[in-house]
Amino acid sequence: MERNGEIKLDPWGYSQIADYDKLFSLFGIRPFRELFPKIKNPHNLMKRGVIFGHRDFDQILDALERKEKVALLTGFMPSGKLHFGHKMLMDQIIYYQNMGIDIILAIADIEAYAVRRMERKELIRIALEEYIANALALGLQKKNLRIYFQSNMDAPYYRLASMFSQKVTAAEFSAIYGEITPAKVTAVLHQAADILHPMLEEYGGYKYVFVPVGADQDPHLRFTRDIADRFSGELGLRRPASTYHRFMTGLDGGKMSSSRPDSAIFLSDPLEVSASKLMKALTGGRATVEEQRRLGGEPEKCSVYEMYLYHLLPRDEDLLDIYWKCRRGELLCGEDKKMAVEKMLKWLEEHQKKLEQAKNEAEKLVEIPSF
Amino acid sequence: MERNGEIKLDPWGYSQIADYDKLFSLFGIRPFRELFPKIKNPHNLMKRGVIFGHRDFDQILDALERKEKVALLTGFMPSGKLHFGHKMLMDQIIYYQNMGIDIILAIADIEAYAVRRMERKELIRIALEEYIANALALGLQKKNLRIYFQSNMDAPYYRLASMFSQKVTAAEFSAIYGEITPAKVTAVLHQAADILHPMLEEYGGYKYVFVPVGADQDPHLRFTRDIADRFSGELGLRRPASTYHRFMTGLDGGKMSSSRPDSAIFLSDPLEVSASKLMKALTGGRATVEEQRRLGGEPEKCSVYEMYLYHLLPRDEDLLDIYWKCRRGELLCGEDKKMAVEKMLKWLEEHQKKLEQAKNEAEKLVEIPSF
Repeated sequence: MERNGEIKLDPWGYSQIADYDKLFSLFGIRPFRELFPKIKNPHNLMKRGVIFGHRDFDQILDALERKEKVALLTGFMPSGKLHFGHKMLMDQIIYYQNMGIDIILAIADIEAYAVRRMERKELIRIALEEYIANALALGLQKKNLRIYFQSNMDAPYYRLASMFSQKVTAAEFSAIYGEITPAKVTAVLHQAADILHPMLEEYGGYKYVFVPVGADQDPHLRFTRDIADRFSGELGLRRPASTYHRFMTGLDGGKMSSSRPDSAIFLSDPLEVSASKLMKALTGGRATVEEQRRLGGEPEKCSVYEMYLYHLLPRDEDLLDIYWKCRRGELLCGEDKKMAVEKMLKWLEEHQKKLEQAKNEAEKLVEIPSF
Repeated sequence: MERNGEIKLDPWGYSQIADYDKLFSLFGIRPFRELFPKIKNPHNLMKRGVIFGHRDFDQILDALERKEKVALLTGFMPSGKLHFGHKMLMDQIIYYQNMGIDIILAIADIEAYAVRRMERKELIRIALEEYIANALALGLQKKNLRIYFQSNMDAPYYRLASMFSQKVTAAEFSAIYGEITPAKVTAVLHQAADILHPMLEEYGGYKYVFVPVGADQDPHLRFTRDIADRFSGELGLRRPASTYHRFMTGLDGGKMSSSRPDSAIFLSDPLEVSASKLMKALTGGRATVEEQRRLGGEPEKCSVYEMYLYHLLPRDEDLLDIYWKCRRGELLCGEDKKMAVEKMLKWLEEHQKKLEQAKNEAEKLVEIPSF
């Protein structure tokens, strides 16, 4: 956020959310910070503004306070390898699980097949080896956990998805999802069923449901909230709550994506590959060393700093220390990168050991579709 | 079929199928009669031309000859009371069941709910009390029989429906079904899954499937055959076969429909109501008695004659006797109607006794959805 030619100092990187104000004013997403008084041990991702917004998450906190049943629902699209951007969501899930919240993980294999046209055997493999195994290695527990493939659910779930179709017009579908196709209809109805089915008697009776998503997913959430309203009488559904996080930037300054291997460090990358990727990452450094000494770096623009903020520096004082050293021009990018690589490799090495063990566990945690 | 002002004599009523030739030439439906040499005990509905066409039914007959597994699949739309038009389909089902063919009855509750917007409790009641109970009273056996609600199936069935969506474009969907809506997409994909799921390993392994339908349903069949082709490699699906029947005309000369109670005699109509409906039915009689004595009646245009042909006169010689007496002006409509009413009441009285007993049996034959 440039103001009079100067960058607003912002160690938490709030300023990186484009359309931040619009999300709040136009779409009714509320700032997450307003909830801090109600949260005893906020996650670093909350304190650091990565989780920046919410809808009705206060109701979730109240329900927890009243000891009522709460579930976190999230869907994985099993389309590629897991990177540090995904880890951020996994970290949230594990945090909530440790708070005693039920965790429900939907593997969006129907969408992956129908819309992304992935081969079924491959998407099943990715779900197990990448998503579930990494989640376990990151610390996901088997308690309060249900993982399912969309295509392997039971009748009430599918009945829900098909019932939803009665009350969605072609016009409103197209307004959100563009051209209406059979594949998109199928994917969208099942996604809504993912979020809302935990509220049914058939799945343990009503519980509050929330979904942690990126802001880009908010149209799905608004759609699902509308559906819940339309079936509040007939099926007792209620609006799901949601939290909104920003995404890590790609190492090259673009979007971090599994389909652009140089934009992301994968949790299964060989150590030397991961190190080389981080060493080449775009930073907030100046054109020359002299300039950087004089003006200081811009950590807000730096993907190495993002690695610290999201992953590598859990203690706030360590993060602030780096932030100000960079800002004051005391820490140059080369030195900083070496430090980040060292921390990352230490973490990755440990993680990859756990990952190998977790791969054997993964298929015990979910029923695998027969085709 | 008027020829030089004269009606072509046609005791079997073939001439009543509009666009008959078009179905054969343009859409590739084959005349059912060509199969007669292969059918040992053809049903009256075959001999009398009610079942007039087929696709690949020769393959079904060959499979039966080779003692391979064959299933008949049909779907019921549980939207209203059962009438004599429905009985004609039930009679076919029972005929095939007695030949040793597996019978699979899909209750199209997803379509009834999503597209026809029926209330779920009501459609479940109609499925049980009208469709299943009447089928049992008509003679459907419990052997080789599977009845299911679409919304109460298991994962492989739904997986199939959702997979189909990958290979159906919006353009081809619209070409068959008009405007594409979420509800229609849902209904159509499940209908295709109804027809094709019995071929999967999960449902007892590959079997030949055929579907007895009215000619108006042929677009669905062509669509489903296309889908089967597209999944022949991935899932081993094959084109379903089909037979085509014409429908009974309504008693008033219009369409016979549950939604127009005077157009149809319901199998549960009180006897006096059914009698009164038949007495008022449109016949092929002339303007005056004198004229009818002189010119003879036109049984091809007569809904009472249709009752004989479809239901009340199983012996061909009895049917032909009536036909020629009417044609020669020997049998007038009043007398004829009394005879028909007498036969119908005798049958209905017997049927309704069985129906009462069957109502208790119906819910034992199918798993009922929890909502």
